[in-house]
Amino acid sequence: MVTSHWTAAPAQASLRRRGAVLERAILDAALEQLSTVGWKGLTMEGVAAGAQTGKAAVYRRWPSKEDLVADALHAALPRIEEVPDLGDVRADLLALCRRTRDAMFSRPGLALRAVIHECDPVQAERLHAVIIKGLVEPTVQLLREVVTRGIERGEVRSDAANGYVFDAIPAMMMYRSKVCASEWSDRDLEEVIDQLMLPLLRPTRG
Amino acid sequence: MVTSHWTAAPAQASLRRRGAVLERAILDAALEQLSTVGWKGLTMEGVAAGAQTGKAAVYRRWPSKEDLVADALHAALPRIEEVPDLGDVRADLLALCRRTRDAMFSRPGLALRAVIHECDPVQAERLHAVIIKGLVEPTVQLLREVVTRGIERGEVRSDAANGYVFDAIPAMMMYRSKVCASEWSDRDLEEVIDQLMLPLLRPTRG
Repeated sequence: MVTSHWTAAPAQASLRRRGAVLERAILDAALEQLSTVGWKGLTMEGVAAGAQTGKAAVYRRWPSKEDLVADALHAALPRIEEVPDLGDVRADLLALCRRTRDAMFSRPGLALRAVIHECDPVQAERLHAVIIKGLVEPTVQLLREVVTRGIERGEVRSDAANGYVFDAIPAMMMYRSKVCASEWSDRDLEEVIDQLMLPLLRPTRG
Repeated sequence: MVTSHWTAAPAQASLRRRGAVLERAILDAALEQLSTVGWKGLTMEGVAAGAQTGKAAVYRRWPSKEDLVADALHAALPRIEEVPDLGDVRADLLALCRRTRDAMFSRPGLALRAVIHECDPVQAERLHAVIIKGLVEPTVQLLREVVTRGIERGEVRSDAANGYVFDAIPAMMMYRSKVCASEWSDRDLEEVIDQLMLPLLRPTRG
C-alpha cells in the first residue's frame, strides 16, 4: 500500500509529541501564521496544519483564537532587557532604536504588528493587554532610563521625562513603517534622533 | 402577492439610477463597507448590495476592488484646505490638530485608516499613492506653513522645517489611536502641543 508522506506524517507526529513540546510547536505555528497571513487570516485549522497536529489538540489547550494568539505573543514578544550606558544620550538612544528596529522586523515583531494593525484595540482587549504589558511598557521604561540618565548628565532638560517624549520614537517608527514603508536603516535612525529627539530633549537654555 | 421591500427594492432602484448618481451611490457604499468591515472584509457583492444595485454595475465601472477603493477614497478623503493665521504657533497648531482629529474620526477618516492599517503599503501601491497625494502631502504642507510662520515670527528655531518635525503630530495621532485607543480630546491635543511640539520647535537660545 502506498502512503503519502504528507498525509501520513501529521498523524504520526502528533502521536509522538506530548505536553510542552507539542505546545511549543502549536505556538510557533500560530506565530508563523500571524507573520504571514495576519490576524484575520489566521485559523485554528491552519495552525493545526502548521504544527502537524490535529485541530482537537489545538482546541484542547486554547478554546479560542484570542487565547491562542495571546499565549503565542506572550511567549515570543521580542524583549529588550536593558540599554547599556554609553556615556551620552545620543549613543544611548541610537542603541535603543537599533534594538527596537531589529525586534520590529523579526518574525515575532511582524506577528505583533499584524495584531496591532488588524485588531481594533477596544474589541481585542485581551491581546491589547499582552502588547501593552509585554512590549509598550518595557520600551517606555527603557526610554525613561535613557532620558533620566541624560537629565543627570545635564544633557537633557529636566522636564523631558514625560509620556509624549517617550512615545515619540515608537510613534515615528510605526508611522513611517506603515505610511512610508520605511525599513529604518541606521541612517534613518540617526536622523530621527538628530532632527527630532535631540532638539526635543535639549536644555531650555542652550 | 406579498413583496418584501428589502428584496424588491434593489432591482427597481438599479433600473432608475444612471451615470453619476449610480456611481456616487456605489462609491458611498464602498466607503461605508471600508469604515465598518474594513479593507479585507469589503467585497464587490457587499458594495453592490449596499448601493442597491447589481454586481455587474459595479464591475462595469471598476474591474477590481483596488480600483473601486482608490476612487472611493479619492472622492471622499477629508480635505483640510488651510489653517488660519491665529497669531502664534501654539494656536495655529491647535487649530490644525483639531481639524485633523475631526477628519480622522469622520466616516471617510475611518475608511482611510482601515486601508492604511490593513494594506501592506508595498503591495497596495495604488492605494498608497492615493493616500500620500490626497492626505499625507497636504497635511505636511499645512504643518510646513504653520512652522514657517512661526520661524518668521521668531517663535520657532530656523532649522525646524524638516520632515521629522512635520511627521511628529500625524505619527503621534496614529500611534496613540492604535496602541492606546486614544480619541484625542481637546485636552490631549493641547498636551501633545505643549509637551512635544513646543519644546521641539523653540529657538535654540531662549
